[in-house]
Formats: sequence, structure tokens, C-alpha cells
Amino acid sequence: MSQLKVYNTLTRKKEVFKPINPPHVGMYVCGPTVYSDVHIGNCRTIVSFDVIYRYLQHLGYSVRYVRNITDVGHLENDSDEGEDKIAKKAKLENVEPMEVVQRYTNGFHEVVEMLNTLKPSIEPTATGHMLEQIEYVQAIIRSGYAYESNGSVYFDVEKYSEKYNYGDVSGRKIEDLKNNTRDLKGQGEKKCPLDFVIWKRADPKHTMQWNSPWGKGFPGWHLECSVMSTKYLGDEFDIHGGGMDLKFPHHECELAQNTAYSGQSQSVKYWLHSNMLTLNGEKMSKSTGQFFLPKQIFEGTTELLEKAYSPMVVRFAMMQCHYRSTMDLSNDALFAAEKGLARLKKGLESIDILKDGDQSFLDVNLIEASLESAMNDDFNTPVLVANLFDAVKQINSSVQNEKPITQEDRQKLKGLFDVYVTQIMGIQLIESSKSSDDSKTIENDLIQLAVDLRNQAKKGKDWETSDLIRNELTKLGIQLKDSKDGTKWSK
Amino acid sequence: MSQLKVYNTLTRKKEVFKPINPPHVGMYVCGPTVYSDVHIGNCRTIVSFDVIYRYLQHLGYSVRYVRNITDVGHLENDSDEGEDKIAKKAKLENVEPMEVVQRYTNGFHEVVEMLNTLKPSIEPTATGHMLEQIEYVQAIIRSGYAYESNGSVYFDVEKYSEKYNYGDVSGRKIEDLKNNTRDLKGQGEKKCPLDFVIWKRADPKHTMQWNSPWGKGFPGWHLECSVMSTKYLGDEFDIHGGGMDLKFPHHECELAQNTAYSGQSQSVKYWLHSNMLTLNGEKMSKSTGQFFLPKQIFEGTTELLEKAYSPMVVRFAMMQCHYRSTMDLSNDALFAAEKGLARLKKGLESIDILKDGDQSFLDVNLIEASLESAMNDDFNTPVLVANLFDAVKQINSSVQNEKPITQEDRQKLKGLFDVYVTQIMGIQLIESSKSSDDSKTIENDLIQLAVDLRNQAKKGKDWETSDLIRNELTKLGIQLKDSKDGTKWSK
Repeated sequence: MSQLKVYNTLTRKKEVFKPINPPHVGMYVCGPTVYSDVHIGNCRTIVSFDVIYRYLQHLGYSVRYVRNITDVGHLENDSDEGEDKIAKKAKLENVEPMEVVQRYTNGFHEVVEMLNTLKPSIEPTATGHMLEQIEYVQAIIRSGYAYESNGSVYFDVEKYSEKYNYGDVSGRKIEDLKNNTRDLKGQGEKKCPLDFVIWKRADPKHTMQWNSPWGKGFPGWHLECSVMSTKYLGDEFDIHGGGMDLKFPHHECELAQNTAYSGQSQSVKYWLHSNMLTLNGEKMSKSTGQFFLPKQIFEGTTELLEKAYSPMVVRFAMMQCHYRSTMDLSNDALFAAEKGLARLKKGLESIDILKDGDQSFLDVNLIEASLESAMNDDFNTPVLVANLFDAVKQINSSVQNEKPITQEDRQKLKGLFDVYVTQIMGIQLIESSKSSDDSKTIENDLIQLAVDLRNQAKKGKDWETSDLIRNELTKLGIQLKDSKDGTKWSK
Repeated sequence: MSQLKVYNTLTRKKEVFKPINPPHVGMYVCGPTVYSDVHIGNCRTIVSFDVIYRYLQHLGYSVRYVRNITDVGHLENDSDEGEDKIAKKAKLENVEPMEVVQRYTNGFHEVVEMLNTLKPSIEPTATGHMLEQIEYVQAIIRSGYAYESNGSVYFDVEKYSEKYNYGDVSGRKIEDLKNNTRDLKGQGEKKCPLDFVIWKRADPKHTMQWNSPWGKGFPGWHLECSVMSTKYLGDEFDIHGGGMDLKFPHHECELAQNTAYSGQSQSVKYWLHSNMLTLNGEKMSKSTGQFFLPKQIFEGTTELLEKAYSPMVVRFAMMQCHYRSTMDLSNDALFAAEKGLARLKKGLESIDILKDGDQSFLDVNLIEASLESAMNDDFNTPVLVANLFDAVKQINSSVQNEKPITQEDRQKLKGLFDVYVTQIMGIQLIESSKSSDDSKTIENDLIQLAVDLRNQAKKGKDWETSDLIRNELTKLGIQLKDSKDGTKWSK
């Protein structure tokens, strides 16, 4: 069996995955800032790490998967200025900030559930760890890498970079960063413009504020992830994931905080980043109209797409692109995914009609190895899908040419679909068809059976039975209408 | 229009509902302690206050509905002793306490969603308000009503009762409480046995602990509700709800804390309590086997009930009992609710086949008034249901006797069903047959009907019919197993 290799942003190469304390794996993924409807690009990140979570479990690891909800501290821009996104929305809507948080957390959960993502083991919130964040800031001040300035606390990047390397996650060089900054003297309260806020003073009008040793304020955005990841996964843990746009400054700052806090520069063993999503080749943007919400795709209510595409089709489209590649969402891509999904389903169904035999024409072990090696190569789902399509091609050809398969291989082949499609990619091939449509069919067949039995009873003048059946059906809300053309029923 | 009256536990009488700042209403309801699967009794509380929430919104109020999740501090018994329920479960399962919290919070949400309850405006957690709780304890100490003792902080009930009345919510008298206490000298750290813990010292092994001015510890159970209700609803707010078992000590202590903190003894204007749920007349209990989980009702997997009942049937059964009365769950009650629900649905459908006319035989305004007055009388849903059944009777009689209705009244009558059944009681009459759970139930009922008919055929030695039924069911993937206890089926 091949070994799982993952691309580590920190080293810029694929490495064999070796967890710190096997069989345990700690994985932290940056979740949404809940101030608006979840973006489909954000969904892609969630789905990408869902597949990683599923695959690690498939490999037998016991994974503690922590994914946060940012409900305070995320400012409008990255230079520690602007309003808090949630407080701003609450002001606009004239509600309590936590009402904004509740609404969009619910909305986020609803959409990622439709996309069949598994729930994380723990879903901590920034406001839910205020005390821990204040203590973390105090610890960084004690270690000498942060300073108070006018009620805010800043991380001292220059001081930090004397001992550690600032730029490991993003690959940026501190000298370049400095040169790219216009105001070398620092912006107001900061010693150096590269410094970032870890606790921000709140002006009296600010709706979200907590008491701290530095006066009333709120935590800097980067702080929460350092605090919550290490609280639930330890000072050193295996995987930190998130969208590629978070590499800088968010993850860079997070790593610096972790290191300053614990003195260990290897707080995260593997940094994994999923790539961006474009729409017809362009950045999605509300202002240009190149934008839709996930639900608009599912419901077919965006003019940018020709029709509705189910959450499973969207998820499958995501699988057809590697998580580290840019994914372009377009009508063509979704349409192709829909067709591909049908092909997979058809292939699975065809396994049942393969001819029985003492030998197998197909090499199931070879197929299995191809699926496994795709996933072991940094969770390469597009290759996985291609190999599955190749298997389908072999199945179809075997059906056509009446080639045999052994009973054992038939079961194994079906099992591979279950494991790689349903369990690992999280694509419901069978359930999706079984869901409401199929149970409707079963229900209709059962009603027809009851109607037939009633007609038989009537024919035999067994009025008691025929009345009983009518009454029972009525109770279930099913009305019968007898006519000369036979009995019709309606609900 | 009649005025809404609510029964206020504080005054032991029905009072006209007058919110403090109309049209705003603040409502706080005690949610679950998430250390195990949600109890159907707890679901009843959630559904009861869901109806209240819905009705207040129907009346035009803008309701901020806060319902908490208790994820720390709830000890095994009420005398401030025993283990923290969540920490204990985490130890048993060898996981992080927050994993326990996440799992059972998810499970709780799933079940109350199946029961079609609306989500609260804010769903705060105890661990999410640690700083606020510590500050609240400090404020009570400053006001003189709490004292530190060996790293814990206790509320000083005797001192409090010199100025305020301890016992307002539960109706207990402090003298009786004192007389009923064996150890008058106090239990260890407490000055008086009636004192209750608001911050508890954690021993080093305790998994859930936070730094505080009194050393490492965690908040007392009663504290969180005082802190979170007033944080999100203000020092004085309109409604505090919960199960009747929470009156003492939980709500009594909460009121004392609120009063000690703010100096206002009227922190909550209306205290509302929903009553308990029994099973076949007895207290539900795991140890006696008189117990099932909500999902077991929906799936028909408890032997204590004859068949599955959909979430809507369970909800409707709850509506047929006033929230302040004990509700007895039994097969008969659920079966009756199922029939009643079908009757309502049929009644609604029959409105469409009423004869057109210039005058209405039915007095729709009178019907409306009867529905409204039922709800205005302390949310009297059983009377509401009775009045709806009465309307159905009138509709059916009108259909039978071909009595007319005007176009306008027809629309109004249909509107009344929509408002009182769907919107206020939260019963989905039309959608219900569409939802997968209900269609599961219908499917199960249809299968049972076929099985019954087969048994009847067997009894009559009509082997042809009995074989036909078995074969048809087999085709649909339904297997029958005959045994001396009857016929069982599986899919």
C-alpha cells in the first residue's frame, strides 16, 4: 500500500503524512466569519477539508476536527483598520450582533449540510473564548513579543523575526514586506507597520467589547485561531487548513502567535491550503453581478446558470478539480459533473448485471490500487474520479462483451464504489436516488397493491375487507375514487 | 379583540400581557444540558415555548428569543455536589468535553428541527460567557450578597432574604426551606445550607476549568442564565420560560442573582413554566425501561408504542394538552393525535369543495374569534384544537348538506387554518405528507396494512392472496418473517 503524501505549504513540497501521536490526528480548519450568507468559494474550502477528514478516517486515524466560527474581531480590511464585520452588519440591521451571528451560522450550517459535509468534532467560537484569548495575549506580552499601545496590544513582528522566521507560511520575506510598506515609521500606535493587532481597544460606541487588562476591547482576528486550535489540539498539532487567501496575513500571524506563546516554532506540522473558486473565469463579485449564492445554484434561480444543479452535482464538480487548483464554476462544468455523476451511478448499477463466472475479466485489485494511489497523492480527487470512470468503462465493456466476474470480485467492486464515492468523496450515489423519489415510488406501489387487494375483495363480495382497506387508506390521507375505468387514488 | 393573558408563576395568576418596551419582547428559555440525547420531555418544553414565540410574533411583537445551551457547570445533583454532567460523560467516553457538547448539541438541534421548532434569535453557551460570568460574580460580591470560601463563591441566601424575598418563583418560604434542611450549620464551605454556589473551585483533575480571581474553577449552573439573559435582553426583560422542574432551585437562584446584581427585584416580568411529560401515566425512566428517545417514536423502534408516529403527530399530541398541564404520552394519545391531524387536514381540503354562494352558512368571524380567544387565554392550544375541530364539523356538515359559502369567507377560512395550524401551532398539514419522515410513516403504515391483509387471508386459508401479497412486498424489497408472535417485516 502506498503512503499518504500531503502538500505542506510550509515546506512547499509533498511530504509523507506522519501524525504526531498516531492513531490520533488533530486538524484545525478556519471556518466562516458569520456576517453574511456563505460564499460558494467558502463552501469549496469546507468540502475540500471534509474529503480530507473523511479520507484520514478511512485510513484508520482517529481525527479530532476543529472548525471555528468567527463571530468577532474580523475587521473589514487586513491592516487592522475598519469596522468589525459583524458589528457593522448588526448596526445596519439594527439588531444585536449575536443575532447576526446566529442567523448566518444557521445559514452556513444549512448549506454545508446540503453539500453532505460531516460536522466537525468541535465548532468553537471566538466570543466563546474571550478569557482564553486575554490570557493568551498576556502570555505573549510576558514572552516579550507583544506590547500595549493606547489600549490595544500589538504583536512585535521585528522582535519576533530576530529569533524566528516571519513568513514561513506565506513564503514572504520580511525584508520585502518592509520594503513594500509605504509608512516605515509605523501607523500611529504601531512600532512598525508590519506589527498586527492581537487585542484592539474599543471605542465606547462599539457594540462588541469585553473588559481586559488593557481596558475595554476585543480580540484581533488572528488571535482566536491560535487560541482555539491549541486549546483543543495542543501546542503542537498535525494539520492546519484553510483557504489560500488566508495564508497572509491570517495564518502567518497565527503561526507567529503560536510560536511566541509556546516557544515552539513547529506548532503546526502540516499547513494545507485549498485554492480559490472563479465564476466563468472571473473572480466572483457582487458589484459586477458575477455572483450567486449556493442555494441559487441548487434552486436554479441565478441567471448565470442555465438550470438548477443539485448539491451532489456541485460537490462532484468540486471533486473533479484538485483542492490546490483554482476551480472554475461554469454552466459547462456543472453540466459535465451532472453527466459524470449519472455515468458513475450507471456504472455502479451495471456491476449487478455482470455475468457470473469463476474468473474475473476485470482486475479489481488493480482498480483499488489506482483509487488508493490517487487519494494518497495529496488527496487527488480528479485522478480518483478519472480512475473511477476508467473502472466504469471496463464494467460497461464487460457487460457488453458478456465478460464474467467472480462473486467475490463483484462484491469487492461494489464495495470500492461505496468506499471511494460515498464515504470518501461524500457523494451519495444510491441514497440520492433512493431519497424522496424512490420512496415515493415504493409508496405508490404499496398503495396500488392495497387498491388491487380491495378490488379483489370487492370481486369476491368481501365488503368487509374492501371497506377496511378504503378506511385505512383514508386515514393515511389517500382517497379512492371508483369509476367505470377502475379505481383511481389521490393524496 | 381579546387581550393576551399569560399565567405568571410569580403571581400565581393570569395577567394581561404588557411588554416592557412594545413592540419588542425579550424572551429567555432554558435550553438543554448537552451531555446526552435530548429527552422527549425537554422537547415538550422547547415546543411549548416555540408556540409562545410564534404566537407573540403573530400578535405583531418583535421578539428576541434567547435559548441557551448549558455546556458547563450543571452538576449531577442540586446541592452543589457531584460531578459536572458533561465532564463526567467526556471522561467516560475518553474525549474532550467540547466534543461531547458538540455531539449532543447537534443531536438536540436535529430533533427539535424535526419537530418544526423555529430557531431562537440567539443561542448562547455557558462556556461562551466565562468572562461575563466572572464579572457577574464579582459584582454580586461587591453588592454584598456573595462570599468566597476556599476558592468557591457562594450566594448568601440569608443576607439576601433580609432585604428581598427568596422564594418568589417557586412559592417556597425561606423558613420552611430552613426547617427542611438537616444540617443547619451549613455544609462545609457554606455559611448556611441554603446558600448556593455561583463559582466552584475545580480540583486539578477536573477537565473543565478557567482562571478566575478565586483560582481555577467553573461557574455554578444557575449563574449562566442570569448572565446571558441580562446580557442579551437587559436587566429587566419580559418573559423567562423553562420546564416546571427548573422552578427550584434553578430559577429561584437565578432571580436572586439578578436582583443581587442589579438591585432590581423585577428583573423578569413574566415567569412561564411548562409542565412535565409522563409515559403511560408514569415518570419516564431509563432504569425501569419506561423510556424511549424522540427518534424512536418517529422511527417506530420502541416496543412501548405500537407503531411509528411522525414528528408532526407528536407535535400535534403536544398541542392537545395545555403547556401547564402534565402531558401523558401513550399509544392511545398518539394514535388519537394522528387521527385528529388527518381530520384537520381533511377539513382544510373540504373548504375547497364547499358550494359557492352569496351568503355563508358558516360564521367565519365567530370561528376566528374562538381561535383567537383560545390562544389569548394563556396559549390554550387544546381549546384551540377543539375549536378547530368544531370548525371542521361545521365544514363537513356544510359539505354534506350542500350549504354555501362566499368566496371571501372561503379564503378567510383557509387563511385561519394557515395562521392557527401552520404558523402558530407549527403543524405542517400540507407539507407534512411531502416530508421524508412522514412519507416513511405512511410507507410503514401501508406495509403494515398489507401485512394485516395477508394475515387475514391466511386466516381465511386464502393462500393465493397471502402469497400474492408476500411476493409483491418482496418485489419492493420488503421481507416478511412469520413467527409465533406474529409477522415482522424488514427492509
